[in-house]
Amino acid sequence: MTISLGKVAQELNKNDYFYILTHQYPDGDTLGSACAICKTLQKIGKKAKIINNDDIPSKYKYLFNNIIPEDFDFRYIISVDVADTSLLGEGLYKYKDKIDLKIDHHLNGTEFSKISYIDSSAAATAEIIYDLINDMEVKIDKDIANSIYTGISTDTGCFKYMNATPKTHIIAAKVIELGADHYLINKIMFDTKSKDRFELEKLVVNSIKYFCDSKCAFIYITNEMLIKVSINNESDLEGFASIPRKIEGVLVGVTLREKENGIFKISVRTDGNINASKICAKLGGGGHIAAAGCTLSGSTDSIEQKILEAIKNETENLL
Amino acid sequence: MTISLGKVAQELNKNDYFYILTHQYPDGDTLGSACAICKTLQKIGKKAKIINNDDIPSKYKYLFNNIIPEDFDFRYIISVDVADTSLLGEGLYKYKDKIDLKIDHHLNGTEFSKISYIDSSAAATAEIIYDLINDMEVKIDKDIANSIYTGISTDTGCFKYMNATPKTHIIAAKVIELGADHYLINKIMFDTKSKDRFELEKLVVNSIKYFCDSKCAFIYITNEMLIKVSINNESDLEGFASIPRKIEGVLVGVTLREKENGIFKISVRTDGNINASKICAKLGGGGHIAAAGCTLSGSTDSIEQKILEAIKNETENLL
Repeated sequence: MTISLGKVAQELNKNDYFYILTHQYPDGDTLGSACAICKTLQKIGKKAKIINNDDIPSKYKYLFNNIIPEDFDFRYIISVDVADTSLLGEGLYKYKDKIDLKIDHHLNGTEFSKISYIDSSAAATAEIIYDLINDMEVKIDKDIANSIYTGISTDTGCFKYMNATPKTHIIAAKVIELGADHYLINKIMFDTKSKDRFELEKLVVNSIKYFCDSKCAFIYITNEMLIKVSINNESDLEGFASIPRKIEGVLVGVTLREKENGIFKISVRTDGNINASKICAKLGGGGHIAAAGCTLSGSTDSIEQKILEAIKNETENLL
Repeated sequence: MTISLGKVAQELNKNDYFYILTHQYPDGDTLGSACAICKTLQKIGKKAKIINNDDIPSKYKYLFNNIIPEDFDFRYIISVDVADTSLLGEGLYKYKDKIDLKIDHHLNGTEFSKISYIDSSAAATAEIIYDLINDMEVKIDKDIANSIYTGISTDTGCFKYMNATPKTHIIAAKVIELGADHYLINKIMFDTKSKDRFELEKLVVNSIKYFCDSKCAFIYITNEMLIKVSINNESDLEGFASIPRKIEGVLVGVTLREKENGIFKISVRTDGNINASKICAKLGGGGHIAAAGCTLSGSTDSIEQKILEAIKNETENLL
């Protein structure tokens, strides 16, 4: 059952002993939203704790400043930024039928909670949390401001993506006014990379191959590279797929990520004029117009040929 | 003489035949500000044209949409985002004593106009222009909104830098509401690079050398590299200096840019805890705490040694 945000505020005010669930491989929005609501509940004297499936990547540790770690059994479960229970991760699966309240901004999520508040016009779940805390009439302090800013900034690529709206900017203005360390947060989120990641980027950009008169560009992430730079966590592999498409004139950017020997996860990126999803559908995959994927096995050469054929097939007149 | 923004609005309303001067090597703020004010003046029936010292980099061409090119002699000269007449560039130097109105946001600029409006709390000159157009009671259309958004977004690194304020975000919200194509603008400004630039980045990141237990990292831009990738314009060389400092654990990032044979322009970047300006002062240069520079000549080896010595000298306990 979908309820109004005012009702959500009432619900939180009248309940206690909250578990707040995030999605697996947690990002800035699920963690920022969870921390903002957890700190808010603790501020008004409630018991609240955040439950994650995974270890929190160290760059997000500041979000937990001044959140009191507590040990208690839940009486009320909230999920934030979780579109479907399959995204909770194995460790949180036991809660999947016990969730009281779902707060989310994803389009096409599933219903799994007793009540829910979904606003797919929000650029981030943290935008909804900002309104909710105001509806609860709790003062947003510096920690909460940092958490909300983190959710908004990370889910919009620092206000760069299409989803950033006037409201996104107005909330950013408000939380900066309330003390959000916007510069430091953005520096951690967007301008810091590990030495291993930097060294991996070197190898990956060196691997670039151009095809079709430089209208297609392929990059490669191989297991050999990952071993060389000793990277073994998925979060250090984020963001590679967008690299080839940023090059002027490249209409289709392809990333080949070796999973096991001879099996590759393929990511296809376009500017939306060429349909990435149709290209990947020809290869047994799928996705969206500008971003799609599939899995292929074989030699690098044969995989390249398959992908190029699918691209040419889809884009006869463009390449 | 410094006047209020209301007076600036009156000044523009009562004058005509405007030349609008930008600074040399024009960026998004000087061009966005100039285009916004030019379009505004043309909208209220005035003659106005923008005068640049340099060719406009092609990525900024959209700013000139619907600006009517006109030929006339000036009766009133405005400079936007120009801190000092030395920044006008040679071609505009003839106007330096004839400037009626200076609108700028730089701290420590010089006085050179009959009247001026300076607000160093503004993240971009385009923020001032937004207020000014409202004071003039002219409706901000889509073109003007795009120009203002471009100025604000580029001068704040897409809201990432320390200078972005609540007001910056509120103006962004307003101009997006008025039709600014924020996604497209940011894509052009931050997510597009020429193939030559991409190939140069490959060479530059490959050149990285770590010193002092990876607390210092040096990158190199040599003439040989520039010839290899056929880059010959300065605007394709922007942003390199920040690369080494983004690596976790690197406290001092140094960029060595070969100018002529054996002469190098050195850029030093720190997080502000180590004083880049003091390091460069030891080498005959200067700058700010987190960003400074100097010029050195000799073999690469000898230059590296000089810089490392200056760094160690300044940071005894840190490295």
